[in-house]
This record gives sequence, structure tokens and C-alpha cells, in this order.
Amino acid sequence: MTYCVGLKLDRGLVFAADTRTNAGVDNIATFKKLHLWEDPGERVIVLLSAGNLAVTQAVVSLLTEHINSASEDHQTLMTVNTMFQAARLVGSAVREVKTIDGEALAASADSFMVTFILGGQIKGEPPRLFQIYAAGNFIEVSDDTPFLQIGEHKYGKPILDRVTRTDMRLSEAAKLVLLSFDSTLRSNLSVGMPIDLLLYRTDSFSADRQWRVEQDDPYFQKLSAAWSEKLRAAFADIQEPDL
Amino acid sequence: MTYCVGLKLDRGLVFAADTRTNAGVDNIATFKKLHLWEDPGERVIVLLSAGNLAVTQAVVSLLTEHINSASEDHQTLMTVNTMFQAARLVGSAVREVKTIDGEALAASADSFMVTFILGGQIKGEPPRLFQIYAAGNFIEVSDDTPFLQIGEHKYGKPILDRVTRTDMRLSEAAKLVLLSFDSTLRSNLSVGMPIDLLLYRTDSFSADRQWRVEQDDPYFQKLSAAWSEKLRAAFADIQEPDL
Repeated sequence: MTYCVGLKLDRGLVFAADTRTNAGVDNIATFKKLHLWEDPGERVIVLLSAGNLAVTQAVVSLLTEHINSASEDHQTLMTVNTMFQAARLVGSAVREVKTIDGEALAASADSFMVTFILGGQIKGEPPRLFQIYAAGNFIEVSDDTPFLQIGEHKYGKPILDRVTRTDMRLSEAAKLVLLSFDSTLRSNLSVGMPIDLLLYRTDSFSADRQWRVEQDDPYFQKLSAAWSEKLRAAFADIQEPDL
Repeated sequence: MTYCVGLKLDRGLVFAADTRTNAGVDNIATFKKLHLWEDPGERVIVLLSAGNLAVTQAVVSLLTEHINSASEDHQTLMTVNTMFQAARLVGSAVREVKTIDGEALAASADSFMVTFILGGQIKGEPPRLFQIYAAGNFIEVSDDTPFLQIGEHKYGKPILDRVTRTDMRLSEAAKLVLLSFDSTLRSNLSVGMPIDLLLYRTDSFSADRQWRVEQDDPYFQKLSAAWSEKLRAAFADIQEPDL
């Protein structure tokens, strides 16, 4: 499995993805699931992927090949004018991969499982955030629930449900996302460090705030220990039922 | 879905189960999923059930019918000498229901989904706690992980992972279990109030500490609000990453 989160806040976007892929518990590896296309000053587009690694890699490769073989005939992530169009391009790439590989996958009882979070900003519109499904269709995030999760999302959802506010600072949101990952990592083996984090400030059109959080990262270790301690203290602090 | 938890602590056992059953989101109802067999001074046996309601009800009915038609030929939950034998009886009942209904369920593309937590104490041995699977086989809880969860277990697991200690007081464990439910209730519609709670003190051989926690229960509401507030305070209290 995988765990990825995207947040759309007043100040910008926050993306985080783990890096574990596994085919059974005895075959695990580290793969980057945070993909970035950047034209500094013009556009920043980030794609987080969950699901069958062969499928997600094929989608990312297709999107990249289209950029490299750009012509006036077709749009690419580097030429579309809106994030909506970018989401449609990713959806089309998903459908293209399904056309090529879907039948063979079904025949070998493998499923065409894949989900993406796509976010970013293209000059001329505000930052936007989408979730793209295996069918190539997608939804856009709303203000009511400003975060999207894909993969192993349940363990890390309670803290997001409780703490997320759209007026958070980006570094505050980074802290929140890392706590959401910490809960997931503790409870589920199929999600693993390092975590890739990218903070995008609205109208910066630059992806210079990236951070790969390694297992032994001193901040992450301190965060994880402090959170456990504070949770236990908060727990102790609440009155018990009279039973 | 369903959410049930059982804990085996130094001081005794704690059981909790929600009461929501649903067949689609437009067909929900309240059913008790905590079942009790008690012979005061001799034995207390508690069964929590998750899965297909027709199956779990059939299993409980079979176990009860066996007791009512007791003869010296067969053992029942009220006559077995150990909790291990009780777990085997439940497993046999699961297999009996599967024999009767399994084929028809499979034919209508319904699955034979069912899991149980069985716990209690029979005079002559300490309290024990088991998880019983759809195949009728089972595991017993260990000291390393003194809790079992069935149903929609992921949202409420991080708090259990972090806070559970085997030396907790029973009322402290009740508080913990209610917080685990609170996280689940907030994030998942298919788990619903009221919650049935039962605290069993070792060697009491009595099930007199039962509590049905309703939606508007003042303690539960205070607990839920206090926990949210303390979590947010704990979150605010932790240093942000320097990004």
C-alpha cells in the first residue's frame, strides 16, 4: 500500500507521500510517489500516486513522454492553461494505460488499481487540488474538506479531521501531515519511510520547499515522541467515567 | 460495518461494541452486538460480533438453543470447563451456520463475512480473550498486544496502540475505548451510537458493570469535546519544522 495526502490551504498547497512499495511483505522497496513538473515563474504541478506501481509508473512515463515529444497537436502538463485541463490529461493517460494493460492485468487476476492526487498552480488561476480515479475521472477538493488522502488513509484520518483548518501556516500543516503519517506508520507495515514532503506557497510558482524525511530525521523523531507523550498526558488529564 | 473492541488487562476484561447495522446507507438500524451469558459466581462469557447480521444472529441463536436444549451429550457455553472450549463451541456454531447458509450466500454474491471477539472467565482459570474467524478457527490475545478489534478497526487503532497498558484501571480502559470509538464515529458513518460497554473484574464472576452509552450521554459528550480540545492544544504545543 501507500499513503499520500494533499491539502489546499489559504496560503498554498501541501503534499506528502510515503515511499514504500510492496509485493507481499517479503518484497518491499523504496519508490518515489511524489512527481513534480515545474516551469519556475509559470507553473508547478505535483502528482501523488497510489496503487499498482507498474500502472502508476506507466501513467507518469506517458505524461513525461508527451512533454518531451511536444507538438502543437497535443497539450501536455507543461502547456495546458488550467489545472482542470491538467487533471483531464492525467485521466486520459490513466485510460491509455488501461487500454494497453487492463485486459492482461484482469486476465492474471491483478486489478487495475490506481488513484492520484494532482495539485498545483498555473499562472492565471489560483492553486487547485484534484483526486483522479482509476476510471480517469476526478473530483476537486472543496473548502469544507480541504484535504485528500489516497492509499492507506484510515489510520491518519482522525487527526486530519480534528485539526485541519484552511488558515493554517504551511509549516504548521507540514507538522500535521507528519503526525498523520506517524499514526499510519505505527499501525500499518505497508506504509514506510522516508516521506516526501512539498510545500507550495500560492503565487510562488516555485517548488523549492521540498523535504525528504528519513527514518532517522531528528525533527520527525522528536515530533513522534512528543506527540505520543502529549497524547498520553491528554488522556490522563480527562476524567474517567464513573463505573 | 461495525466496530468492537476487547481488552485483556491485569484487572479484568473490557468489552465495547457499537450498535449500527446497515445494508446500504439508506437502511440503518440499531442491533445489539454484545451478547452475554452469565452464571453468577461461576462464569461470565461475552461475545462481540461483526459482519453479516443474519450470520451473526444465527450463530448466537444456535449457541443459545444449545443451552436451552442442554443434555449430557453435548457441551454448551454454560457447561464447558474452559474459555478455550467456549471458543471451540463458537467456532463450531460458525461452521454449522456456514454449512446451512454458506452456499446460498455465495450464490447470491453475498459473502460469509463474520468475526467475533469472545472473552470471559470460567471458575478455575483466569479471564481469557479470543478472536474467532469466519472459518471457525481462532486466536487468543497475548500480553504484547492486549486488545482485539473487529469491524471498522483502523480509525480507532492509533489511540489504542499508543495508550493501552495492561496495568490500566478498568474505568481508565473504558475511557480509552470510548475515545477509540469517538475517532471511529467521527470518520466513518457505518459505525453508530449507542455503544454497549461491559467491564469485567477478574474473579468477580459477575457482569454487573454494563453501560449503554447513548448519543446524548453527558460523559461521552464531555469526553469527546475535551479530547478534541486537548488534541488541538497538544498539536499547537509541538514545534513546527523549519521549512
